[in-house]
Amino acid sequence: MTGGDLNVVGAAALALVRDRGGPRTGALQGEMDVIEGGAVAVRDGLIVAAGPTGEVMADWGDPAVARLDATGRTVLPGLVECHSHPIFGGERHFEYAERLGGASLAEVAARGGGIWSSVVASRAASDGELSARLDAAYRRITAGGVTTLEVKSGYGLTVDEELRELRLLEDSRRLTPLELVVTFLGAHVVPRDVGAGDGGAAAGEAYTDLIAGEMLPAVAEQGIAQFHDVTVEDGLFTPAQARRLIRLGRQAGLPPRVHADAWRPSQGWATAAGERAVSAEHLTYTPDDEIRDVGSSETVAVLLPVAELIYMTDRRANARLFVDNGVPVAVATDYCSSIHATSLLLTMGLAAPWFRLAPAEVIVGATLNAAYSLGLQDRCGSLDAGKRGDLIVLDCPHPNEMFLAPGAPLLTDVVIGGSRIRV
Amino acid sequence: MTGGDLNVVGAAALALVRDRGGPRTGALQGEMDVIEGGAVAVRDGLIVAAGPTGEVMADWGDPAVARLDATGRTVLPGLVECHSHPIFGGERHFEYAERLGGASLAEVAARGGGIWSSVVASRAASDGELSARLDAAYRRITAGGVTTLEVKSGYGLTVDEELRELRLLEDSRRLTPLELVVTFLGAHVVPRDVGAGDGGAAAGEAYTDLIAGEMLPAVAEQGIAQFHDVTVEDGLFTPAQARRLIRLGRQAGLPPRVHADAWRPSQGWATAAGERAVSAEHLTYTPDDEIRDVGSSETVAVLLPVAELIYMTDRRANARLFVDNGVPVAVATDYCSSIHATSLLLTMGLAAPWFRLAPAEVIVGATLNAAYSLGLQDRCGSLDAGKRGDLIVLDCPHPNEMFLAPGAPLLTDVVIGGSRIRV
Repeated sequence: MTGGDLNVVGAAALALVRDRGGPRTGALQGEMDVIEGGAVAVRDGLIVAAGPTGEVMADWGDPAVARLDATGRTVLPGLVECHSHPIFGGERHFEYAERLGGASLAEVAARGGGIWSSVVASRAASDGELSARLDAAYRRITAGGVTTLEVKSGYGLTVDEELRELRLLEDSRRLTPLELVVTFLGAHVVPRDVGAGDGGAAAGEAYTDLIAGEMLPAVAEQGIAQFHDVTVEDGLFTPAQARRLIRLGRQAGLPPRVHADAWRPSQGWATAAGERAVSAEHLTYTPDDEIRDVGSSETVAVLLPVAELIYMTDRRANARLFVDNGVPVAVATDYCSSIHATSLLLTMGLAAPWFRLAPAEVIVGATLNAAYSLGLQDRCGSLDAGKRGDLIVLDCPHPNEMFLAPGAPLLTDVVIGGSRIRV
Repeated sequence: MTGGDLNVVGAAALALVRDRGGPRTGALQGEMDVIEGGAVAVRDGLIVAAGPTGEVMADWGDPAVARLDATGRTVLPGLVECHSHPIFGGERHFEYAERLGGASLAEVAARGGGIWSSVVASRAASDGELSARLDAAYRRITAGGVTTLEVKSGYGLTVDEELRELRLLEDSRRLTPLELVVTFLGAHVVPRDVGAGDGGAAAGEAYTDLIAGEMLPAVAEQGIAQFHDVTVEDGLFTPAQARRLIRLGRQAGLPPRVHADAWRPSQGWATAAGERAVSAEHLTYTPDDEIRDVGSSETVAVLLPVAELIYMTDRRANARLFVDNGVPVAVATDYCSSIHATSLLLTMGLAAPWFRLAPAEVIVGATLNAAYSLGLQDRCGSLDAGKRGDLIVLDCPHPNEMFLAPGAPLLTDVVIGGSRIRV
């Protein structure tokens, strides 16, 4: 990305999340400095200074540089969305209406709904159709304050279709100023057209073999993914299958992410942390005892409150216990075929009361910790000098205020690499 | 309001909520027709036809009339927000951050927070300050799809200050194209500067006397409110005090609304329904047995999911039980000094999974039932001919989709009285 020059000045509140060399947890999960009258200077797309306006402008106040006057407003690091599945076909809003009307997941699946319907529709969709939907999603996600976005494959579930999705995701970089991080998620679910078609244990083993023997080697050879995500969930992939795939992926140069415990306790968190995965995502049903037993980790716990809301889970991820046990927590939106929420700002507003997290804990979770979960801590997640000039401006006088105003149209500016983005 | 002429045509989905002469409940709470390829014709600010585009345009297709092409998009009746407290001074986001960090309401109050801080700040604010905040709030509320808005006083709590707030609310009609409905809420809480200042029973009685003897007569005489709202809540106003105020207000020409059971079971719902109040609002802690005992009612139950989220209540209003017992349910946002959410669209997206209500039940709750709760059923709440031409357009192909996309920037157009509003 070619970068711009920009001085953002006079912010009523500049939320300084500082990178201290690792993801944040415990008491540091919520450490944030709010500078009144703050400024950020960006040169050639990189941050060169952030602090009180007077100090920053003394060094960088070149009047020829473009200026963004943030008087009365709040400046945050650009948000980092670290969990999305944006490439899919089909419509699932009718199914959600059925669920809200009382239908069970099994009933919905029996009527042809559920994730398998998305796989069928995604395979049937043309490249152009899939790309058009990516384009629309990226615009909305940017309008939710995001400047870096992780995007997963996972609605193809054959060698050819997973490779097609990854290629379209790679190609979609030209559609958006967002920095994209592409994740291969072959082990999303067990497809119905493998083995006996019953999604049973034998099918799971056969599909694991397919990923291990064909998909992973092809993905690695083509160099079209930066991460490898594997699901650990009762009835999908066992911890043993996941460990096999995680290790093969790592050998092939793809660091592991893990979908864990989204629907029931499945030893997903212990498996992810045991493998030193970069992240474990969902964790709704991870038992408290498992969190205590694992203790602290470098694996980032990526929590998804909107998914819990829309899936109407009867438990929430125990965010507080993760933080108190020394696990860095990130928050993300989980845009996918069954969740079309796109605003990480809204997700943050929901996350705070949903998980009983303080505003600064959530802000760190959607910036610095999310950046670490993507291995992009050198480029984003805080306003430290040397990182890319990614920031957002909100029409409120303090970052706490955005939590009091979930869904309000606060976002006024998105800056990526020092360039103002139209949203 | 002077009205415009407009033809809205080609909507992928026209959500026809039909007014059948009363608020909706039971099986009718969720009755809605979705017309593919729908149109609405507005003349002199009033709806003259709504239905399939071909039929509507056969009669009303004058090419000289302004045209809004809604191809690919969804058209809904303009949303009716029936619970807001938009006139206040001060900031309470620090207090919310303390609450999220674990502080109790009592601890927050001991540090000078809570609603009393808003009363003090509101009294100290100038007319201009209060009006400027109203103006900003109205713009954001309109951007959340609202075309009719109820606004309550209640942060003054003296004769002069309540009259000032009502006068400013009346005057604020010039700030906005929204239709405003003004509600006098003297009985919001028991102010600390009445009686012994302890908010105890004697103070409650003294303040009830003040409302009955001075405030209500002055409000009625000045004709600056359309409704009278009274709180029924343990520790604030008893059912007996509320009944006294409700009846006095009704005699003075002010139909009653009731704040009920927001913090604990307080017989608020039974009191409101027993007095045939137009609405009862909050109802978070209304016991299931009380809902069953009261049975069906004309009193509209106004439920506030964002308030329950932000207040972190340990119970949710039992929306399903209200509907199943024959009580019409409305949903509203509760914009106030401690909740700055402004988007009724987002509230609806939250309400569905929060309360396990179907999409159409929520849509009826934010349109027709809300209109009935304001006595404005002749003017808004549905797209029936003769009502004002208030509607919104969403960038999605079906109304169900907005529930899958909470917080996404779907709203493309707001029309009030046939005139397109800039949002």
